[in-house]
Amino acid sequence: MTTAKRDTYTPETLLTVAVRVFNERGYDGTSMEHLSKAAGISKSSIYHHVAGKEELLRRAVSRALDGLFGILEETGAIQGRAIVRVEYVTRRTVEVLTAELPYVTLLLRVRGNTRTERWALERRREFDQRVSELLKAAVAEGDLRADVDIRLATRLLFGMVNSLVEWYRPQPGGSPEAEQLADTVVRLAFEGMRAA
Amino acid sequence: MTTAKRDTYTPETLLTVAVRVFNERGYDGTSMEHLSKAAGISKSSIYHHVAGKEELLRRAVSRALDGLFGILEETGAIQGRAIVRVEYVTRRTVEVLTAELPYVTLLLRVRGNTRTERWALERRREFDQRVSELLKAAVAEGDLRADVDIRLATRLLFGMVNSLVEWYRPQPGGSPEAEQLADTVVRLAFEGMRAA
Repeated sequence: MTTAKRDTYTPETLLTVAVRVFNERGYDGTSMEHLSKAAGISKSSIYHHVAGKEELLRRAVSRALDGLFGILEETGAIQGRAIVRVEYVTRRTVEVLTAELPYVTLLLRVRGNTRTERWALERRREFDQRVSELLKAAVAEGDLRADVDIRLATRLLFGMVNSLVEWYRPQPGGSPEAEQLADTVVRLAFEGMRAA
Repeated sequence: MTTAKRDTYTPETLLTVAVRVFNERGYDGTSMEHLSKAAGISKSSIYHHVAGKEELLRRAVSRALDGLFGILEETGAIQGRAIVRVEYVTRRTVEVLTAELPYVTLLLRVRGNTRTERWALERRREFDQRVSELLKAAVAEGDLRADVDIRLATRLLFGMVNSLVEWYRPQPGGSPEAEQLADTVVRLAFEGMRAA
């Protein structure tokens, strides 16, 4: 028998546990039984907090999406030349990724089998689209190279940025600080690896 | 009852089926039963060709790894300044990714639960390490910027390149040709997105 823990969870702290399990087992591969074991409380205690695992997924990816869309409302993303704004958004995206790592990791692994997953994919595409428009504006202003397809450039930019979730770990032991990391990503993405 | 197909497989054609199933369900989530159903032949027919699913995994990731390590033996990767060699290797890596898409996809998703998976991860790290050394040589020759950590630059470069497996599909309907794609990746990675 597992020792049942007294249920001192809030929806917020329960979310932390759920996101960890979702990232370990995949959302599809996670049952309420797995969540109950990981949290150390009964399934009925979990149902006291949330309607089910899909609600936990919705809360988790909402947190990631709110972080990302929040960037687009910041002054740095709204004022100035498009190139400055797109560099700002890239930098802040890296910062949100590192600050909300488990939530963004889950968002990036969503596959689309449930309504919530399809909604999350739709919102992700919307964010990519907003960044793509900024890139297009920067090309129009002559600051970004015009010889590269914008859709492809957007994909490669996000490919580079999103790959962080595969290896960035905030614990000590070698990972660069989040701010320095954001600097490097912006420098490589916009200036390239070649010496000036 | 499923209609059993006459076993006309070779180890090679069976591999094509296995890789598709591994990529759809994950290697861990694939049983011999799943493979038997997908191939339309009995489990004992499969065992006639291979010792089990781990052998299929080994053959599949070997194909991807042989493609990648083969690049490092090509003249373009051996002769000339390091910057030219590293651009060559980047371009050819994109070409191998697109040509061997299901095999490289599987390689990039390997997790390390079995001996074969750990061996594959080890070989992947070795390839990354070889590219990292080329980048280091190019910095030493003054052609790549010295203000970026090489380990981080390697990770970001592979983050960009490897992201192709998530969206590149060779079928008609919009995906850029493999060669043009390789050009764009090299241009963005080395020259950056900014207009010259």
